[in-house]
Amino acid sequence: MTGRDGGAELTPIEPSPVVILVRPQMAENIGAVARAMGNGGLFFLRLVAPRDGWPQERAWRLASGAHRILDAAQVFETVADAVADLHRVFATCPRPRHIIKPVLTARGGAAEIVAIGTRGLRCGILFGPERAGLDNDDIACADSLIRYDLNPDFMSLNLAQAVMIMGYEWWLARMPELPARDLQTNETSIATKGELDHFMAHLIRECDAAGFLKNEQKRPGMVRNLRHFFTRGEVTKQELQTLHGVVSELVRGPRR
Amino acid sequence: MTGRDGGAELTPIEPSPVVILVRPQMAENIGAVARAMGNGGLFFLRLVAPRDGWPQERAWRLASGAHRILDAAQVFETVADAVADLHRVFATCPRPRHIIKPVLTARGGAAEIVAIGTRGLRCGILFGPERAGLDNDDIACADSLIRYDLNPDFMSLNLAQAVMIMGYEWWLARMPELPARDLQTNETSIATKGELDHFMAHLIRECDAAGFLKNEQKRPGMVRNLRHFFTRGEVTKQELQTLHGVVSELVRGPRR
Repeated sequence: MTGRDGGAELTPIEPSPVVILVRPQMAENIGAVARAMGNGGLFFLRLVAPRDGWPQERAWRLASGAHRILDAAQVFETVADAVADLHRVFATCPRPRHIIKPVLTARGGAAEIVAIGTRGLRCGILFGPERAGLDNDDIACADSLIRYDLNPDFMSLNLAQAVMIMGYEWWLARMPELPARDLQTNETSIATKGELDHFMAHLIRECDAAGFLKNEQKRPGMVRNLRHFFTRGEVTKQELQTLHGVVSELVRGPRR
Repeated sequence: MTGRDGGAELTPIEPSPVVILVRPQMAENIGAVARAMGNGGLFFLRLVAPRDGWPQERAWRLASGAHRILDAAQVFETVADAVADLHRVFATCPRPRHIIKPVLTARGGAAEIVAIGTRGLRCGILFGPERAGLDNDDIACADSLIRYDLNPDFMSLNLAQAVMIMGYEWWLARMPELPARDLQTNETSIATKGELDHFMAHLIRECDAAGFLKNEQKRPGMVRNLRHFFTRGEVTKQELQTLHGVVSELVRGPRR
């Protein structure tokens, strides 16, 4: 299935865990999984006994360009075959019963997968079929379980969504640190304090002229409030130019 | 559009942010968004100028039971109308340009939404149309931007996936603390130490009988190793019963 055109230039990031879809039913979902894997930087896809066989053109149509992931997907007959060359296997399952295995959150699981990867070991993550989920024999092939922290009153999680959350957490877990907040300055020209002062002077001059600041006692506080307002965040040169125009036009307006 | 049967008993969790889909194109995606909202415990859905009008039966078919979210969805003509009663608005957009606004990660944004909610203020999150994303006029209605930390080489993020990640992060941000790891014990009966000892005695007795532990010098270390192995994690009563059976059957086996 290689050689399809128009796909994104996706390549494996090593070491990245293998996504293993166990008995997936709908080829569309396999395509949506590949797209979600691309979003999260995952690349290795294995299919265990896909219901409708493999390959299926419908998967590529739903992959939104993540063709390389589908091109490289491997098919296995059993879960045991699919995990045979892996060192650690995680099973995503919402409601484990009568089973004693470590249970991790998606976030905790992603951290562990990254940590295991740094030791040169390969991980796999099992995802069950759309309706039934993993069965007990599937889960027996896993070392640990991953259970998503989500609304317990509505656990119907789409297969691609389940893969998306693991990919998202894996992508973040690889980051040395996560900047919770920054300020966007790309391709934007920030005004200097001098330019801002120039505008403030313009504004206050015109306010004075209009008699708006005539109360000498209140004037310092009012000027300070204006300055506070206009320096609340960074201002671009373009915005300052617009503000200058607003002041000038208001002054020139019909009220005069 | 109320009165549909078979949906999940979803109710609003207050204060939860409003999901605002701006000019959504496919009704199927609106349904998938509602499903993702249900997973993340979100409830309030607003649609700004949906391309094919509203309601659309196809949305309900894709919602996997999150009917109540769709039943309660509100339609607006403009983004400004849709955010008029909200206190803080976040815009999800991958590539802001020439714009000075705080940019947060999904995780940082979710933390801020929860913090704002505790002050009794209502938040909204804007999601753009499937192909084009939010335009500059849409973004101007927002206080802050949310940019997902995902693979920059494959940014084609499905609309429902984008909502899923925000819902997932919002659900987690509400938790006082996140247990990264726990052990599954629900509905499982853990063996007592006495029951485990009983099995160890059984095992060692048979090993002795078979001559496996006949080297008196090595015996204590071998027994300790066996004990270590069988107490590595919690053991269920059922598992112990099986182990007893294994030992008994091996002893009874054809080799004797």
